[in-house]
Amino acid sequence: MLVEFSVIPIGSSSSIGDQIAEVLRIVDASGLPYKINPMGTVVEGEWDEIVKLIKKCHKKVMTSEDRVITTISIDDRKGKPNRIDEKVKSIEKRIGKSLKK
Amino acid sequence: MLVEFSVIPIGSSSSIGDQIAEVLRIVDASGLPYKINPMGTVVEGEWDEIVKLIKKCHKKVMTSEDRVITTISIDDRKGKPNRIDEKVKSIEKRIGKSLKK
Amino acid sequence: MLVEFSVIPIGSSSSIGDQIAEVLRIVDASGLPYKINPMGTVVEGEWDEIVKLIKKCHKKVMTSEDRVITTISIDDRKGKPNRIDEKVKSIEKRIGKSLKK
Amino acid sequence: MLVEFSVIPIGSSSSIGDQIAEVLRIVDASGLPYKINPMGTVVEGEWDEIVKLIKKCHKKVMTSEDRVITTISIDDRKGKPNRIDEKVKSIEKRIGKSLKK
Repeated sequence: MLVEFSVIPIGSSSSIGDQIAEVLRIVDASGLPYKINPMGTVVEGEWDEIVKLIKKCHKKVMTSEDRVITTISIDDRKGKPNRIDEKVKSIEKRIGKSLKK
Repeated sequence: MLVEFSVIPIGSSSSIGDQIAEVLRIVDASGLPYKINPMGTVVEGEWDEIVKLIKKCHKKVMTSEDRVITTISIDDRKGKPNRIDEKVKSIEKRIGKSLKK
Repeated sequence: MLVEFSVIPIGSSSSIGDQIAEVLRIVDASGLPYKINPMGTVVEGEWDEIVKLIKKCHKKVMTSEDRVITTISIDDRKGKPNRIDEKVKSIEKRIGKSLKK
Repeated sequence: MLVEFSVIPIGSSSSIGDQIAEVLRIVDASGLPYKINPMGTVVEGEWDEIVKLIKKCHKKVMTSEDRVITTISIDDRKGKPNRIDEKVKSIEKRIGKSLKK
């Protein structure tokens, strides 16, 4: 299962880098395969382990904030392992060129 | 915690009403407060009970499909109960008129 | 084309009802069919008119905020008019009961 | 303005790589700064040029499909240029280590 998520505190400040850094420390320590991008974090794993990770991130930010918006997109496809690497490679192969990552 | 989610099967047909009906039967039977709209379902509850419900819906659709995309938006705000009704009412009060629902 | 969107100011306050009220005044005045729910607004129309409406809402909130996150989900299906009403009705027909809205 | 988007055809097949390749050819040819990830594409630019690009991608996929779901997340912040590179760097600086991308 491939999942992108982002955790956004509302109402503290327009600068939310400290809270995002806290989230990414938790993701990096989780041991799950992940990739960060400028709008969110993609992780790969099973439902329960991913949901547990996102809960930990969300609750961490809620300790210091009154309101948090967490967005999660799940792409679940049978019989396709290692999609965090293979999905982009498969597109590049189709296009015949390397794309910006 | 207020959560909107949608479960979308990819690759079976452009008509996905049967799978959405299955999802909504599960939501309706859950006992959690909910409201459906043309693009998703909003439920209110605690993290674990909502995540359990969405997992049940997602897994149900995965039994008959090869690929499912599930999207979840969580709006978590301290000390605000019954937001599934109050959020819209509070906006209507500000505007001074009833809006279409 | 059926589109759900939400416009969320980051960094002013955890209470964002005033800005959401501004957005909904614009939506209500647009003349497009719409339905609000506790997590966003669903509108129906053509690409250009909907994008113009969302731009107006987003820019309005940006006049008073330093940072705004706007989320848009587009469900575009050929040959299906009046989906803002029909989509939910078609699900209720399948389930054989009226659902909470 | 930093924008992540994805264009997903519903109902043709669970394998949608060909359509995503078409979308990424359009993005790559647009001249806008972009980064792809396993769940979507992040682009940076002004409202009108980004919306024009996403419309082109969406309409391209609609030419061969009956139904397409396009999801867009906009993060608009005053006075912050080159966020497509700087946002991740600023988090890595806070954490004091390089993260997986």
